[in-house]
Amino acid sequence: MSKVTVHRKAHFNAAHRLFRKDWSDARNYEVFGKCSNPNYHGHNYELIVSLTGEINQETGFVFDLGILRDLIKTEIEDCLDHKNLNIEVEEFQNLNPTAENISVVIYNKLQKHIPNHLDLKITLYETQRNFVSYSGE
Amino acid sequence: MSKVTVHRKAHFNAAHRLFRKDWSDARNYEVFGKCSNPNYHGHNYELIVSLTGEINQETGFVFDLGILRDLIKTEIEDCLDHKNLNIEVEEFQNLNPTAENISVVIYNKLQKHIPNHLDLKITLYETQRNFVSYSGE
Amino acid sequence: MSKVTVHRKAHFNAAHRLFRKDWSDARNYEVFGKCSNPNYHGHNYELIVSLTGEINQETGFVFDLGILRDLIKTEIEDCLDHKNLNIEVEEFQNLNPTAENISVVIYNKLQKHIPNHLDLKITLYETQRNFVSYSGE
Amino acid sequence: MSKVTVHRKAHFNAAHRLFRKDWSDARNYEVFGKCSNPNYHGHNYELIVSLTGEINQETGFVFDLGILRDLIKTEIEDCLDHKNLNIEVEEFQNLNPTAENISVVIYNKLQKHIPNHLDLKITLYETQRNFVSYSGE
Amino acid sequence: MSKVTVHRKAHFNAAHRLFRKDWSDARNYEVFGKCSNPNYHGHNYELIVSLTGEINQETGFVFDLGILRDLIKTEIEDCLDHKNLNIEVEEFQNLNPTAENISVVIYNKLQKHIPNHLDLKITLYETQRNFVSYSGE
Amino acid sequence: MSKVTVHRKAHFNAAHRLFRKDWSDARNYEVFGKCSNPNYHGHNYELIVSLTGEINQETGFVFDLGILRDLIKTEIEDCLDHKNLNIEVEEFQNLNPTAENISVVIYNKLQKHIPNHLDLKITLYETQRNFVSYSGE
Repeated sequence: MSKVTVHRKAHFNAAHRLFRKDWSDARNYEVFGKCSNPNYHGHNYELIVSLTGEINQETGFVFDLGILRDLIKTEIEDCLDHKNLNIEVEEFQNLNPTAENISVVIYNKLQKHIPNHLDLKITLYETQRNFVSYSGE
Repeated sequence: MSKVTVHRKAHFNAAHRLFRKDWSDARNYEVFGKCSNPNYHGHNYELIVSLTGEINQETGFVFDLGILRDLIKTEIEDCLDHKNLNIEVEEFQNLNPTAENISVVIYNKLQKHIPNHLDLKITLYETQRNFVSYSGE
Repeated sequence: MSKVTVHRKAHFNAAHRLFRKDWSDARNYEVFGKCSNPNYHGHNYELIVSLTGEINQETGFVFDLGILRDLIKTEIEDCLDHKNLNIEVEEFQNLNPTAENISVVIYNKLQKHIPNHLDLKITLYETQRNFVSYSGE
Repeated sequence: MSKVTVHRKAHFNAAHRLFRKDWSDARNYEVFGKCSNPNYHGHNYELIVSLTGEINQETGFVFDLGILRDLIKTEIEDCLDHKNLNIEVEEFQNLNPTAENISVVIYNKLQKHIPNHLDLKITLYETQRNFVSYSGE
Repeated sequence: MSKVTVHRKAHFNAAHRLFRKDWSDARNYEVFGKCSNPNYHGHNYELIVSLTGEINQETGFVFDLGILRDLIKTEIEDCLDHKNLNIEVEEFQNLNPTAENISVVIYNKLQKHIPNHLDLKITLYETQRNFVSYSGE
Repeated sequence: MSKVTVHRKAHFNAAHRLFRKDWSDARNYEVFGKCSNPNYHGHNYELIVSLTGEINQETGFVFDLGILRDLIKTEIEDCLDHKNLNIEVEEFQNLNPTAENISVVIYNKLQKHIPNHLDLKITLYETQRNFVSYSGE
């Protein structure tokens, strides 16, 4: 049996600031610099969702990428696109929305909808120069 | 004499919302949809600045791209990068920060620093799928 | 008043062959080479639709890119995506589906839906290395 | 000794449909949607071939990328470029040409020409948004 | 009759330095900075050749892109690829190899092989951030 | 605890030739072809530096990408950008500057500045079609 990874790319645009509520503004600025601007800034996030598993001999698919596209839309894009991550997304009420933390949040949101026999990996581009990847380990 | 166009690419990340102060929230939402989210969203803007003119026979340059890079940094990136366009940028106090209007603002900010014998053009990518261009006409 | 060009990128995947019905297979092969393979080959076409006009002072838009996105979907993607251009698209029944001719067909299909005060331009990538542009002149 | 992976990118354009001969058209359409269009559609496939092994201390190469380029040309591009995968490629006579299955076929075609001390991996982009990877496991 | 522009992308890798023989090293460094390093540096140049003209009603082509690809190979790539522009390319014996001047040299080399009824334009990327365009005006 | 990989992209332009001092010019040409041109050629190298480790619960960072950006600048870009690798970079005095060897040199230069609890990986694009990766194994 052949194990293949299938990947699907998606996009969302969001505002955020790097910020801890329990730190002073001065300390936030010291650690996070202009990324802690209290008026927010934003990004075009690019998301790659990867699933690894055996090819289904009947369909030739590891996982139907149309279903994955819809899952990313309802679970991720509808929650994050055109949103302010700090204010409007529950998971970041007490979690700093760094790219690292956003990738873990996306992983956890998707993971409960992915069949158990598949391994999930998240790659998240904050900019073309800064990106992160997370596979639940 | 040969007329050549030189192009320089730059980047900035900013938050914005599409919004007119003199319209109700309902009307803003009707016209601008989720782009008028009062908590803002954001983009990785990609900017291409183009200058057209004759090649300087001494240097082989139309315009020194190192000087253009520094000009874009001081006049544009320092003003717009990691900013909230609606709140923190003077030009958008009474101007809706659509990609079209941002390109005109950038053109006007740069134009006063560009020698008269050169033609300026601005291309601004709001996302990889939506972009605008403006040449002062 | 400021004239700005707004651009919207879209995609469609299609099969085609370069072929004239009134030529022999041998002559088709001589002129079009492997592109005239009778069993077809295909491309991920990338389409950029550009509209030039004055910024609407009320909205800050030249043309609402959400409306343009929907127009490209109904007029172009629904007609061409996952289709065999030679067999299934009426305009190519007697027209060789070269990138040049496809760009003219797309222009004509869109042009009747675009307000008169805007100039339309089509850019069509057949591959990342071969592309064409057409503005109705 | 240092283990490095070398990667080479290539391209081919092909037509295909997702289709099982032993299923009815209705069943094919139910599972594969518009991708099972009987008149075919097509893609610009992008292929990345990766080889992992120790650097040859004499040449500084893991594997000569010029030789790999030629191998990809004769073994893959000459077989798949400008072809209809379902009709003209032997391996897909009884195998559904999903991206997953194409990546396994490419792996098997290349693997017999790659020295035993090197690990082979295939990455295949069907579109910029849908891609797969396979390393023979 | 419809006027369409066809574009073909090509690549070459070359070494160069920005340098005038009739200037001192100090003056060269003052004007061209690290780009005048006497030991050279280099680039992956990306070249787009664009031809504008009417569609040939018989073939559906403005110009056969296969012929253009071959022309770019023999006239440009064979002369510039893997070369030191300052030392090995005749046109730069007394001409500073700035991107501007390279684009004019490429234009002049191609122009004599292009039919008179077509307009030629050159776009040359020195890096992803610095590029030039020239259309013989 | 969650292990995430953070990636930072950088660029440098350099000249090189593939060449062993202890081989004749004929032997160098036989093995390395036009890449051994004695007058050099060059590339726009693209570098991705990846660090894997646990998210710092205080900052939400695996490693501050601003610090990584500065480290890449002082340790890599300042040493390699606009340089002739064979002549001006100490590490290549007796080492052939293949992409494989450059990636190992970059790894070794960075590794001594990276905290022990993080795993380092280097990806180096010599061109868009040829690239290598190395993780110190």
